[in-house]
Amino acid sequence: MSGSTFGKIFRITTWGESHGPGLGVVVDGCPAGLPLTVSDIQSCLDRRRPGQTSYATARKEADQVEILSGVFEGRTTGTPISLMVRNQDQRSRDYGNLAHVYRPGHADFSFDAKYGFRDYRGGGRSSGRETLGRVAAGAIACKILAQLDIHIQAYTRSIGPVGIQTFDPSVITQNPFYMPDAQAAAKARGYLEQCKKEQDSAGGVVECSIEGYPPGAGDPVFDKLDADLAKAIMSIGAVKAVEIGDGTKAASSRGSQNNDSFCYGADGTLTKTSNHAGGILGGISDGSQILLRAYIKPTPSISQPQQTADRNGKDITLEIKGRHDPVIVPRAVVVVESMAALVLTDALLCGLGARMEHLEKIWKK
Amino acid sequence: MSGSTFGKIFRITTWGESHGPGLGVVVDGCPAGLPLTVSDIQSCLDRRRPGQTSYATARKEADQVEILSGVFEGRTTGTPISLMVRNQDQRSRDYGNLAHVYRPGHADFSFDAKYGFRDYRGGGRSSGRETLGRVAAGAIACKILAQLDIHIQAYTRSIGPVGIQTFDPSVITQNPFYMPDAQAAAKARGYLEQCKKEQDSAGGVVECSIEGYPPGAGDPVFDKLDADLAKAIMSIGAVKAVEIGDGTKAASSRGSQNNDSFCYGADGTLTKTSNHAGGILGGISDGSQILLRAYIKPTPSISQPQQTADRNGKDITLEIKGRHDPVIVPRAVVVVESMAALVLTDALLCGLGARMEHLEKIWKK
Amino acid sequence: MSGSTFGKIFRITTWGESHGPGLGVVVDGCPAGLPLTVSDIQSCLDRRRPGQTSYATARKEADQVEILSGVFEGRTTGTPISLMVRNQDQRSRDYGNLAHVYRPGHADFSFDAKYGFRDYRGGGRSSGRETLGRVAAGAIACKILAQLDIHIQAYTRSIGPVGIQTFDPSVITQNPFYMPDAQAAAKARGYLEQCKKEQDSAGGVVECSIEGYPPGAGDPVFDKLDADLAKAIMSIGAVKAVEIGDGTKAASSRGSQNNDSFCYGADGTLTKTSNHAGGILGGISDGSQILLRAYIKPTPSISQPQQTADRNGKDITLEIKGRHDPVIVPRAVVVVESMAALVLTDALLCGLGARMEHLEKIWKK
Amino acid sequence: MSGSTFGKIFRITTWGESHGPGLGVVVDGCPAGLPLTVSDIQSCLDRRRPGQTSYATARKEADQVEILSGVFEGRTTGTPISLMVRNQDQRSRDYGNLAHVYRPGHADFSFDAKYGFRDYRGGGRSSGRETLGRVAAGAIACKILAQLDIHIQAYTRSIGPVGIQTFDPSVITQNPFYMPDAQAAAKARGYLEQCKKEQDSAGGVVECSIEGYPPGAGDPVFDKLDADLAKAIMSIGAVKAVEIGDGTKAASSRGSQNNDSFCYGADGTLTKTSNHAGGILGGISDGSQILLRAYIKPTPSISQPQQTADRNGKDITLEIKGRHDPVIVPRAVVVVESMAALVLTDALLCGLGARMEHLEKIWKK
Repeated sequence: MSGSTFGKIFRITTWGESHGPGLGVVVDGCPAGLPLTVSDIQSCLDRRRPGQTSYATARKEADQVEILSGVFEGRTTGTPISLMVRNQDQRSRDYGNLAHVYRPGHADFSFDAKYGFRDYRGGGRSSGRETLGRVAAGAIACKILAQLDIHIQAYTRSIGPVGIQTFDPSVITQNPFYMPDAQAAAKARGYLEQCKKEQDSAGGVVECSIEGYPPGAGDPVFDKLDADLAKAIMSIGAVKAVEIGDGTKAASSRGSQNNDSFCYGADGTLTKTSNHAGGILGGISDGSQILLRAYIKPTPSISQPQQTADRNGKDITLEIKGRHDPVIVPRAVVVVESMAALVLTDALLCGLGARMEHLEKIWKK
Repeated sequence: MSGSTFGKIFRITTWGESHGPGLGVVVDGCPAGLPLTVSDIQSCLDRRRPGQTSYATARKEADQVEILSGVFEGRTTGTPISLMVRNQDQRSRDYGNLAHVYRPGHADFSFDAKYGFRDYRGGGRSSGRETLGRVAAGAIACKILAQLDIHIQAYTRSIGPVGIQTFDPSVITQNPFYMPDAQAAAKARGYLEQCKKEQDSAGGVVECSIEGYPPGAGDPVFDKLDADLAKAIMSIGAVKAVEIGDGTKAASSRGSQNNDSFCYGADGTLTKTSNHAGGILGGISDGSQILLRAYIKPTPSISQPQQTADRNGKDITLEIKGRHDPVIVPRAVVVVESMAALVLTDALLCGLGARMEHLEKIWKK
Repeated sequence: MSGSTFGKIFRITTWGESHGPGLGVVVDGCPAGLPLTVSDIQSCLDRRRPGQTSYATARKEADQVEILSGVFEGRTTGTPISLMVRNQDQRSRDYGNLAHVYRPGHADFSFDAKYGFRDYRGGGRSSGRETLGRVAAGAIACKILAQLDIHIQAYTRSIGPVGIQTFDPSVITQNPFYMPDAQAAAKARGYLEQCKKEQDSAGGVVECSIEGYPPGAGDPVFDKLDADLAKAIMSIGAVKAVEIGDGTKAASSRGSQNNDSFCYGADGTLTKTSNHAGGILGGISDGSQILLRAYIKPTPSISQPQQTADRNGKDITLEIKGRHDPVIVPRAVVVVESMAALVLTDALLCGLGARMEHLEKIWKK
Repeated sequence: MSGSTFGKIFRITTWGESHGPGLGVVVDGCPAGLPLTVSDIQSCLDRRRPGQTSYATARKEADQVEILSGVFEGRTTGTPISLMVRNQDQRSRDYGNLAHVYRPGHADFSFDAKYGFRDYRGGGRSSGRETLGRVAAGAIACKILAQLDIHIQAYTRSIGPVGIQTFDPSVITQNPFYMPDAQAAAKARGYLEQCKKEQDSAGGVVECSIEGYPPGAGDPVFDKLDADLAKAIMSIGAVKAVEIGDGTKAASSRGSQNNDSFCYGADGTLTKTSNHAGGILGGISDGSQILLRAYIKPTPSISQPQQTADRNGKDITLEIKGRHDPVIVPRAVVVVESMAALVLTDALLCGLGARMEHLEKIWKK
């Protein structure tokens, strides 16, 4: 039970290591009849590689995805959709020096403690490349949501100490950090230059907003919509905190401030006059915008010398060679979006069985 | 799929409404041979009711738990353990005024949106009493952990704006707020008096620490130990954010600060010189103290008049009668502990299958 | 993971031992809005006790079921439905002689091998009373199916060597064996008298027919409708074989005989001219009658002396005292019906997500 | 939830269609440290294609398997093992005539009823090629079992009316039918020649025996070892009945005949003097040989003209062109073995958590 499956009805299983033959995902439980092409998925994967900037590893690989099953004549068939990306760059570079070392902030030691040994090439299964499968599957979930007029958008709220001050969605894709504030993006660039100079790295915050999600999805006890989102987001490597709505701030608020008043809109639909709750009450969506945030730690791979230990009982000084991203936050934006999309799609599918009248609507002759 | 089951191997299923005949939990997958008595469970349940203080609803009910199955001659048999608490106070009080109203901050509307109607008595399934089953099951998990020399303790870090400044574990059970700082507890008392006077309520932060948890538990991708903890904690009603280790602070830190150095202790065991990670790396425990925090919103039930809407399309002004807790944080302490214990126990059980040598140790003749 | 949960969306968890405080079941995932009363469930439970005849243990217990949660104002709320039956007869009779003995045909030894010890009173968890929870949950499933005009009926096909020759459904409830053939029932009575006289026991075959089940339910690979039915039926204690449609006979048939021709009926609906397949093709219902059979071994408790072994390394001769049912087949009829109903209900719920158009029908504004 | 995942801890997910780009399986939960090579898997896959004989489709494809993840330096790493076989023969042959037709005995209609349309090329997901993933995963399970000295062997018991009379294991691989009786194999050959001449097909029975499986695996209620085996076997396309031990015969037996006496062997281990139960009592293995049988219907694809219907409301006469296997039973032998191996491996992994002493043995320092 290595925990590589996620979701209850819309269920994905990812596989693959950073330097093995490839990585992929099997998406089981996708409803039949969804139009789906390779480019739907490829376009999401491409967002994982900010590419031209100097703030992220310019891995040569194109990460071309292939649809291996589950799609026929341009539509999903209801059977498992298998997606694969071949690793181009498999030749075992000189990892010899890392094979026996426990890098600070990495999972080297904990993998050894669990399994007795590990695939040490490029982080193996705990590499950031593991998110390829999540994003590929998330692309399908996003397509389903779009068919239901539900739209999801993540962006960077802060990098290190540099937070956004304004919110202009049109700016998000115009800077390499996916920030909705051009000025903050410029400052973030400066901050990261400084980090690189100091052989150091930065973290940041990704925010994700979902519009158009209907009320009544999610379950009231363990499988609360916010609980499933929390798991989904915290399962992304390097995330150390998750917030829904006002999040941590709610803890120091007062009931009279934090409660959102219900009211009827001009069109007679129920809405709320504020949204401290972030669109979820009692674990179930309330029809408002869903809002969540992921707090991401600074990239653990830094090139300055670090104290650490090896497998053989010795304390050592480690210098990790090669280029390192001073920040992974921008690459995480599409991953946060994908994980949220997976949860939100699954909750809609699970919700189909919530009422007898649904059963009658679909099954009764 | 109303999502009332939690856990993979150590799996609990809770049931019950606030004002139905009772509430309970079925614990499936508990290993055979654990000594277990009613008082092991009752003592945890009793911590849910701060009782004599004036800061929490003095419900008359004793909440006496009964073990209905799965224990024979004082030991668990390996078959499901069914635990039940009868509601003493079932008479339908006058809920008539709440049946058609959507209380702000409550799940009334979202339940209706999901199911078409709801059991409106005392919050029904979304009542705080739903946590009875979690705590009863958590008591069993804590007992298993204790047998393995793993100890778990939660306490209140802050109530509203009042945070702890010192940490003295012996003080935790000596104030009604479960704060490890007597002065902060005194201030919290003052703050809550103020809240009550103003017909308002407060939130707060619960922190949970686990000592003695071995390295190597948890899974590397979706079922990361921190991801499962995040879900477990966020599934507690009123929690709006979850942090592991440094949590939100990690996002503004630098790699050089946030990385924990490994080193060998005097006894030759691997340890870390700091613990920003909170005891989990790559989703797998690293043998350090596990540390997490739950941010809890202010109690939504306040007695001041509130604007809201009813089921029938009308905006109304609501006054909720009766006494209300100005804060639920202290009652949540044992719930956080219980949910953490469930995850940590389950991860140990799941981890049994991580290596071929474990299979051989147990099954080979 | 003691495997006490069954189903994917309509999910039941049973608990309880023969001589513990009680037995019960939690039904999670029942859609909201189903009318449900205690008598719906009680009437199914009553079918488990043929009562007045001398062919089954006349346990004094009324087996009164109580609904503890999940039903409000006569309808299911969508939250877990907890059902419990108290054991009236808990006093530990003299089981001393059975505590250390491995009864032939019973699970005494295998329980000890798994758990290290066992609750030996009346078979503990492996008692036939364990089926109470299945039947109580099955009653709810049957009610859902009935709302969708799906009807399920099980009956006895044979007892020992005595098989039915005719099929008259009106006769089924008019004999203690639930046989649809009055003559066969009379012969079975004679056969069982003989068995009793010889201190021996008999097995038999239960057949179950489902009418009105729509085409398109069930999954094509592992969770085939017939595969899930096979598991459900084989999980009933004492069942040693399961057949779908022609079952074992299909293996010696020819393709030209075994293939069912499709054709359009007068009303334009697709049907089949024969039903060797038993209503399931490729794991998915085809709209025909679903037909299955359970082969049940003779009751292992017989009063004649038997050779066996004890826990302490000694071969012994065992005489099991008390009255024993010479046959359990009639009591299994309602259990087979219940397990089938659980599978068929769950498959309908799972099938809600099979097509994008279903999602749109339920969720799109 | 298209049900393409099987198993609880040792969990496989298959994907792929007959004429898509390929087929494969992801094996999650395989313990780390198992030696594993491509040839371990390839040799099992090769058993699926009897090849040289004229009794099975001589598909040109080599069905070369590739290990895409989860194995490092010749050993499993504990992370998901992804296995893939490319389809060589993807060009869409002329399926036009089958696209709109419901073939008798096939899943064409039920797929349409479920999903609204289907991939009609070569049966799509319901093709016999779907079993490739099962066999590839089963090869890994068999390797784990072998490490624990557990051996599993399936063979053909009968083809059409031709049953084995003797049992000589050395003969099994010496005839194209995998029969342990050379004379029966010769007769089966004659029978199949006759079937071919008559443009007809035959079914048969596969038996599977497991030696060395320890007592104490499997769960006592729903996830009984025999129940999980029944599901596993019935989930193989074309299987219509499953038996454990004496199976259907048990129903007409007497308790005094069917009960197996326990006794202590010369070496002091507990054993049984007979094995009517087939190695499983109360859902838990008892240490004896496990024995099961799968009844397989005749291949539905026959070349004689058949009456059936099309998608458009018309009754038609169908002639299926091309060569067809007159029997699939021999190809199913390795599939039965694989499915049994998956269940038996999973039950051992699940059983690791059955006792507190196991937890202590693995986790306590």
